[in-house]
Amino acid sequence: MHIGIVGLGLIGGSLGLDFREAGHRVSGVSRSPDTCRIAVERGAVDQAQPEFTLLHDADVVFLCTPLGVMQETIQTLIPHLSAQTILTDVGSVKQSVVYTLEPLWRRFVGGHPMAGTEHTGILAAIPNLFRDRPYVLTPTPQTDSEAQSILRSLIQDLKSQYYECTPIQHDRAVALISHLPVMVSASLLQACLAEPDVEILKLAQSLASSGFRDTSRVGGGNPELGRMMAEHNQTEVLRSLQQYRQSLDQIIELITEKKWDALEQLLTQNLAKRPNFVDQ
Amino acid sequence: MHIGIVGLGLIGGSLGLDFREAGHRVSGVSRSPDTCRIAVERGAVDQAQPEFTLLHDADVVFLCTPLGVMQETIQTLIPHLSAQTILTDVGSVKQSVVYTLEPLWRRFVGGHPMAGTEHTGILAAIPNLFRDRPYVLTPTPQTDSEAQSILRSLIQDLKSQYYECTPIQHDRAVALISHLPVMVSASLLQACLAEPDVEILKLAQSLASSGFRDTSRVGGGNPELGRMMAEHNQTEVLRSLQQYRQSLDQIIELITEKKWDALEQLLTQNLAKRPNFVDQ
Repeated sequence: MHIGIVGLGLIGGSLGLDFREAGHRVSGVSRSPDTCRIAVERGAVDQAQPEFTLLHDADVVFLCTPLGVMQETIQTLIPHLSAQTILTDVGSVKQSVVYTLEPLWRRFVGGHPMAGTEHTGILAAIPNLFRDRPYVLTPTPQTDSEAQSILRSLIQDLKSQYYECTPIQHDRAVALISHLPVMVSASLLQACLAEPDVEILKLAQSLASSGFRDTSRVGGGNPELGRMMAEHNQTEVLRSLQQYRQSLDQIIELITEKKWDALEQLLTQNLAKRPNFVDQ
Repeated sequence: MHIGIVGLGLIGGSLGLDFREAGHRVSGVSRSPDTCRIAVERGAVDQAQPEFTLLHDADVVFLCTPLGVMQETIQTLIPHLSAQTILTDVGSVKQSVVYTLEPLWRRFVGGHPMAGTEHTGILAAIPNLFRDRPYVLTPTPQTDSEAQSILRSLIQDLKSQYYECTPIQHDRAVALISHLPVMVSASLLQACLAEPDVEILKLAQSLASSGFRDTSRVGGGNPELGRMMAEHNQTEVLRSLQQYRQSLDQIIELITEKKWDALEQLLTQNLAKRPNFVDQ
């Protein structure tokens, strides 16, 4: 199959590595000629250039640009595609993307490969990034079912775990387990930085250990990524934050009212239920 | 030096291993004869028994019982000690302990070795548990300075990082970087478990990955430990939760009002400041 990849960063480059390994021909497009050259050198693509003309006979095109430029990218891309080309994206938010791009291309299917590292760019691309990781497709009643099943077979080439849900289900679930933790963790760092007593702040910094390290990790990560989550998934992130605030207020109330047994019971429920989210 | 250890669990047993390695004679006391036997077998103590009579000529006694039983333990212990014996505890909260125990023993110095593993009990005791970890002493104006300096030299034997502060400074700092993360993380799990849509809850459980795993870790940990933090450090935990709630509300407001630049700025501050808390 001839696969096009628009945007040769961590995700686009890693997709290219795996698709070529699976025997597909891969053409890449990046605005940067340097990135194109590196992508070829690293074996992420068979060929790459800044123009979309390479993709005129692509069977499937993966849009791997940042969320903010997807719409303008697809509008420039469309005139270069053949009508049969399947188009998909890798955006981490689906409602805004799907409802923007779907009207523009009949064979569009929204997708989200849930993998990454802390690095970005073509130099960070690695083989098997998606292996055993979730890859979610978010079809709608308008989605072309043949296009979806072709994409599904490509996802099998990546050895990903395949999931399927509606765009809103995706955005709500991802808000809870990916975007909410960033905001929760960011608030923890902010609360500590807001400590008015400098002596205590210094001491806290010296004494912080693994519990603080883990709980503050995603809140001290890539600021553009955090902004992007909130900006593109605003409704669902706010929904998850309201659910969170209720849970927080409940814990504050239990502690204020010295309901220690109830607090321990709540923590016991967490201990029992956390393995449903996280492989131990 | 003759060192007594009351309570032969992870902390008491690990202290014994290191103090014996440093050339001290160590006597242990545990209510459980089995624990006493195992402590001797593992080399954590030279001798151990359920009675305090072993400690009549101890130079320093470490109280390593749970916070909840410290006061009753010290009252039973006191009649067995010589007047010169230095007494210290290893409790993770200091105001309640220090102001309870200090009036009962002239040569008492509050302490907190900040180390642990996820395991408990004498079988979990390991050498070098405290090496390169903070060990905080919390003297007051009443503290015997000679007793404090002898303890400080023992802390050097453990190769710990020595810190000194007031009990309230300790409890506030520890609330921020240890107890608050537990409540913040527990609220995250509770917010997800409260998801009313079962389909979304199931999907969220399938899609959760490293960000959720790290942010939810301490909130899905030992329930007794979480309860103990809140119960014994109630005032400071509530203070930290109020600071946290303000930070959370600020982030909710930024997202509600679509102040994306301000949100990114806040996250950029977190990225820059987190290394002050956590070695990268």
